[in-house]
Amino acid sequence: MRIVYVVPGPMGSTPEGKAELERRGRLLREFASPETEVDIIDVAQGPASIESMYEEYISIPATAELMMEMEAQGYDAAILGCFGDPGLDAMRELLTMPVVGPGEASFLTAAMLGHQFSVITIMQSVVAPTRWQVRKAGVGEKLASVRSIDVPVLELARDREATLERMIAEGRKAMEEDGADVLVLGCMTMGFLMVAEDMSKALGIPVVNPSRVSLKVAEMLVGARLTHSKRAYMTPPKLAIGKVKGSGELLVAKGE
Amino acid sequence: MRIVYVVPGPMGSTPEGKAELERRGRLLREFASPETEVDIIDVAQGPASIESMYEEYISIPATAELMMEMEAQGYDAAILGCFGDPGLDAMRELLTMPVVGPGEASFLTAAMLGHQFSVITIMQSVVAPTRWQVRKAGVGEKLASVRSIDVPVLELARDREATLERMIAEGRKAMEEDGADVLVLGCMTMGFLMVAEDMSKALGIPVVNPSRVSLKVAEMLVGARLTHSKRAYMTPPKLAIGKVKGSGELLVAKGE
Amino acid sequence: MRIVYVVPGPMGSTPEGKAELERRGRLLREFASPETEVDIIDVAQGPASIESMYEEYISIPATAELMMEMEAQGYDAAILGCFGDPGLDAMRELLTMPVVGPGEASFLTAAMLGHQFSVITIMQSVVAPTRWQVRKAGVGEKLASVRSIDVPVLELARDREATLERMIAEGRKAMEEDGADVLVLGCMTMGFLMVAEDMSKALGIPVVNPSRVSLKVAEMLVGARLTHSKRAYMTPPKLAIGKVKGSGELLVAKGE
Amino acid sequence: MRIVYVVPGPMGSTPEGKAELERRGRLLREFASPETEVDIIDVAQGPASIESMYEEYISIPATAELMMEMEAQGYDAAILGCFGDPGLDAMRELLTMPVVGPGEASFLTAAMLGHQFSVITIMQSVVAPTRWQVRKAGVGEKLASVRSIDVPVLELARDREATLERMIAEGRKAMEEDGADVLVLGCMTMGFLMVAEDMSKALGIPVVNPSRVSLKVAEMLVGARLTHSKRAYMTPPKLAIGKVKGSGELLVAKGE
Amino acid sequence: MRIVYVVPGPMGSTPEGKAELERRGRLLREFASPETEVDIIDVAQGPASIESMYEEYISIPATAELMMEMEAQGYDAAILGCFGDPGLDAMRELLTMPVVGPGEASFLTAAMLGHQFSVITIMQSVVAPTRWQVRKAGVGEKLASVRSIDVPVLELARDREATLERMIAEGRKAMEEDGADVLVLGCMTMGFLMVAEDMSKALGIPVVNPSRVSLKVAEMLVGARLTHSKRAYMTPPKLAIGKVKGSGELLVAKGE
Amino acid sequence: MRIVYVVPGPMGSTPEGKAELERRGRLLREFASPETEVDIIDVAQGPASIESMYEEYISIPATAELMMEMEAQGYDAAILGCFGDPGLDAMRELLTMPVVGPGEASFLTAAMLGHQFSVITIMQSVVAPTRWQVRKAGVGEKLASVRSIDVPVLELARDREATLERMIAEGRKAMEEDGADVLVLGCMTMGFLMVAEDMSKALGIPVVNPSRVSLKVAEMLVGARLTHSKRAYMTPPKLAIGKVKGSGELLVAKGE
Repeated sequence: MRIVYVVPGPMGSTPEGKAELERRGRLLREFASPETEVDIIDVAQGPASIESMYEEYISIPATAELMMEMEAQGYDAAILGCFGDPGLDAMRELLTMPVVGPGEASFLTAAMLGHQFSVITIMQSVVAPTRWQVRKAGVGEKLASVRSIDVPVLELARDREATLERMIAEGRKAMEEDGADVLVLGCMTMGFLMVAEDMSKALGIPVVNPSRVSLKVAEMLVGARLTHSKRAYMTPPKLAIGKVKGSGELLVAKGE
Repeated sequence: MRIVYVVPGPMGSTPEGKAELERRGRLLREFASPETEVDIIDVAQGPASIESMYEEYISIPATAELMMEMEAQGYDAAILGCFGDPGLDAMRELLTMPVVGPGEASFLTAAMLGHQFSVITIMQSVVAPTRWQVRKAGVGEKLASVRSIDVPVLELARDREATLERMIAEGRKAMEEDGADVLVLGCMTMGFLMVAEDMSKALGIPVVNPSRVSLKVAEMLVGARLTHSKRAYMTPPKLAIGKVKGSGELLVAKGE
Repeated sequence: MRIVYVVPGPMGSTPEGKAELERRGRLLREFASPETEVDIIDVAQGPASIESMYEEYISIPATAELMMEMEAQGYDAAILGCFGDPGLDAMRELLTMPVVGPGEASFLTAAMLGHQFSVITIMQSVVAPTRWQVRKAGVGEKLASVRSIDVPVLELARDREATLERMIAEGRKAMEEDGADVLVLGCMTMGFLMVAEDMSKALGIPVVNPSRVSLKVAEMLVGARLTHSKRAYMTPPKLAIGKVKGSGELLVAKGE
Repeated sequence: MRIVYVVPGPMGSTPEGKAELERRGRLLREFASPETEVDIIDVAQGPASIESMYEEYISIPATAELMMEMEAQGYDAAILGCFGDPGLDAMRELLTMPVVGPGEASFLTAAMLGHQFSVITIMQSVVAPTRWQVRKAGVGEKLASVRSIDVPVLELARDREATLERMIAEGRKAMEEDGADVLVLGCMTMGFLMVAEDMSKALGIPVVNPSRVSLKVAEMLVGARLTHSKRAYMTPPKLAIGKVKGSGELLVAKGE
Repeated sequence: MRIVYVVPGPMGSTPEGKAELERRGRLLREFASPETEVDIIDVAQGPASIESMYEEYISIPATAELMMEMEAQGYDAAILGCFGDPGLDAMRELLTMPVVGPGEASFLTAAMLGHQFSVITIMQSVVAPTRWQVRKAGVGEKLASVRSIDVPVLELARDREATLERMIAEGRKAMEEDGADVLVLGCMTMGFLMVAEDMSKALGIPVVNPSRVSLKVAEMLVGARLTHSKRAYMTPPKLAIGKVKGSGELLVAKGE
Repeated sequence: MRIVYVVPGPMGSTPEGKAELERRGRLLREFASPETEVDIIDVAQGPASIESMYEEYISIPATAELMMEMEAQGYDAAILGCFGDPGLDAMRELLTMPVVGPGEASFLTAAMLGHQFSVITIMQSVVAPTRWQVRKAGVGEKLASVRSIDVPVLELARDREATLERMIAEGRKAMEEDGADVLVLGCMTMGFLMVAEDMSKALGIPVVNPSRVSLKVAEMLVGARLTHSKRAYMTPPKLAIGKVKGSGELLVAKGE
């Protein structure tokens, strides 16, 4: 089984980013079952980090193109490497292999572990979008709350202990004030920080790491021989009837 | 009051398209109150028509840039000229003037006219996204159904009478089978076809024309001195703290 | 375009009330577009103010009669001048011109401005009815809370600054404790007190003034050539089949 | 225990109506437990029958006054004798004894008997209001459908067998097409026609007779020593603080 | 009318338990109307008290058998004497006489008394199950909260005054923090402690005693000649087609 | 990783049943990843098949005991081998290893594959319980319908082709009449019949096989190092405080 994890931004454009990309690749391979091959790849152009709906949207065009290339290369499933699942429905319109959205996969897993889950995320600016995302995943009735620690993505890893402390503090409020019995980390960088188990130990409830869970859900879907419904995520009509040949041709310019 | 209607695709790239753009501009001026100035503009790059989530997403980056330019030029409000409201939340993150989403404005108007409305749209491929769009607008409890006539956007105007007939036929089913007491046309090209009043006469219930309604809602918001909440649609953090200067800088490339 | 604002109580029965009625008329004319004519009228009999469901109900019979008279006089739309929208469905059963309910119009406008709105109202006794009114408008999913300042209607204007202060205090709680990103003033007297802009400035989020918004929504509906569905708000059967000639005949007395 | 059934219209104004009023009184006494006294009374002024929201509203003022008189006479509970429960919340604001709404009582009883109930009512004009009424009662999730037989109230009893046949036909559709496993008769005249048991036999599922059930629910509440919460249904503030002495004084006229 | 109250545990296995069983029988007879006969009976085997879903489940097999025996003895209705309504749907599959679940009956009665009710229950371990139970009863929209006093069932009666004090304290929080306007006692032992009226006096809102209410609801259903729908609660197919003769035969052992 | 599949009935009590148990074991091993060990075991006493809530309940006590034994033997996760997930919450109260409910796991997986799923199940008697089960899993908003083929569990395998044909026929109705874009097989015997891929090919949409999916979800949870929240599924208090030593002691008899 071959799975590709696609980072929807040019993470590898700096030496530090490149190292981080490799570190994440190693972690994904640790998460994987022995018979799974996992690759990680970033797109050539996109936002440095995603902390708003605008940044979600500008990440989609290049990521969708790369996803299609990955399917052509024979991968069995792809993971869309941003917790906000930007453009997940579009990727499913364009592809037939399973595309795992880490947010969606984490919410549905959390739904299996308890009655009410809370999401601990980065910035206030993504709290409302995350609430909608949970509802779109179909499990809005199980959402206790979305809480942010107010630390930008690019600073999460600067001081792992300080970040962990803030995450535990918000997680505790989610339990005590909002009634959460399960937590979900709402950002892939949080996931790759590998703090979920420490939080879980500190708080006594399960903490879903989206990085680990999205890989396991991808394996699960491939192993179960399931992919998304093309009746739900229809191929764009101009592509379906052959009016245009590739997704790129759907985008036209004025001078054309 | 100055309102701009932004077409999220390069409609004016062909002579016929240019003529259609001008025709729509004239209609919008007819819809408007005497003291309102309305301009219409298209983006330089985007999909020829929008019939899938993928096409919605690829229309957003250029449209958002143009929207910001329009705000800089002093417009009082903008209309995002696609019924699917692609990127509406992102536009609101970036702008302070009101941005009217024709879908959202039509659903909320329909909610005021009856108990249950149905949307008559173009293709099966946008039925599920439209259902979700209604829920996101907050009036999911008033949705009777979304039905498509299965005619692509670019062919709607080819035979106005045939299109009208199919729209009336689906509208009748929405009333009789789904219990609709109000209809909404789910496509701007449908709106500018000026069939809503004919449908309404034939079926005996109100039919919301999104082209007309989005203009009137824009006037209403400006007249009521209201715009969207920046607490709901927060400025992207990197922009808010001045880390980047324009929205364009949020998009970076690998080689940078 | 001619719009009439109907006060569902005998406001003009005292000299002070008469002056207030005239002041409200002047404000409505200020809110209106240049080409709109607005008149204000009160009913001969009704409650002094409306702070309970019982007072809502006893206002309806005389108001409905006056509404029908206004339609006969050729108005294009009417505004039912109480935030609780008392008898709105009945007015729509009896009339074909649009009848704007200020509560309904404000909730639907608020839904367009943010993710979750709160209503700031007068007395605890109308909190539960207002909650239900929001659900009936179809946007219950967007309601954060209803909060009262516990000042009776007839005392709101006594000390404008004190009232404003209490409204800002409750508005702040709505934001901080209930997550509101938009506020709605839940009383027409609050609206005509012209405090919405001061509140908005103090709190940094939009505040919907039902007095202004109901006038703009009336203009919007007339401009969009839309009125309520008679399939949704059916003419009372005895009237529809001509068994009785006027709405007044539906009310019979024992001795008849 | 003394219970009064209040007809919100001047039923006893004709000899036939008077006889019907007496017949209903006898049936209510048959429904009652041996230790219960039941009286029936009609109001002096109101609609001949209730088939619209407008007729509901015009029935309320006189009915509320009579209800208060009944409480003063020492009754233990009152039944508001119209399935639409017109003004039920207002009656509860004014009274402390339990006021049973036959619609509400029937829906909540039906909820105990199965998973999904349908209401079989008189005219299309009350279908949408009945749907809202079910939601207001809190059991909207258990509603399968509301169906009308399209027979006016005053003609229901003209041909009992024909009426029964239509009711069985609609009931069958509710079972087969809408999935109902319990039925509720949506009109008091239907209830006093004593067809529920015949329908139940014909269709094999429980049929809730609102006339019988509202009496038994009134006995149940008195027996359980329960009445509505005054925190939910607050006394109108002007009455509560003694500013006006009786509910009648809440209604003022212009000349006063 | 003959009603049997079935305790789903071997309460009468100790002298104190036997005395308590008799005391409860006396209270039930006090609650009942003069023409109602009430008996109380316990099962031979079951949990000492029910404070978890596991204990709910292990109580069901023996209770169901006893319920069927009671129907055979000619009772008109049965009360399942645990607030959690363990196996209520199964009892209804097996029986044709009405089976009252005290939880369900209390929630639906509470729904008639106010807008939002809270349940005051025993232990944190039943809070989440109670929330589900309310939703299953169909009135989830009216639930304000479920709160526990954290006193085990078998210790509730040890110090009536201390228990009452904790119940009043939690009830007050339900009112002030959760907005409850009606309370429900979430345990039969709480009900038979006869504290509901004291709580109601202290807090000023209705308090539903499930012990009293379940008896009155049983009388109401028998009096209304209603029982659950067999289309909703179908007879187990193997029983329905006569493949097995009694419910006991549905349980088979490996060696058989 | 060691996973045990527990059949909640004495399947292995006849030679044919024993063969079937072995066949299912072989299939489970085929479904599993190479590094997973899977065992299958049945309980000594329980229903021959589960087609009602009553049969669900009587299966729980012995199954729960066996589950605890399996945890003691060191398994990493257990699958509760009945689609209805009987007693799933109780098993989670008693155990700390993950317990997969095939219904819950299938619904949540289906939610990831499309917008609206339908369940194709065995008998009409489980349709309503299945609807409730979907809501309890938290994804009620994604349920299109539950449909039965009306074939008893024990006859499903008698004529595989006839069964498949009926399943395809109901699946087609689910798509065309109810709008399903994903199907779920609602019975483990259906799952082990290995018809899901044939159905999927015939209908063109994904069909979730609960037998395969519950195994893959068990692997996913163990691989993700997650188990249910003990704050959501609390240990029964008498066990938690050591008042009784084993779950068996929670069940007491009258003579004790």
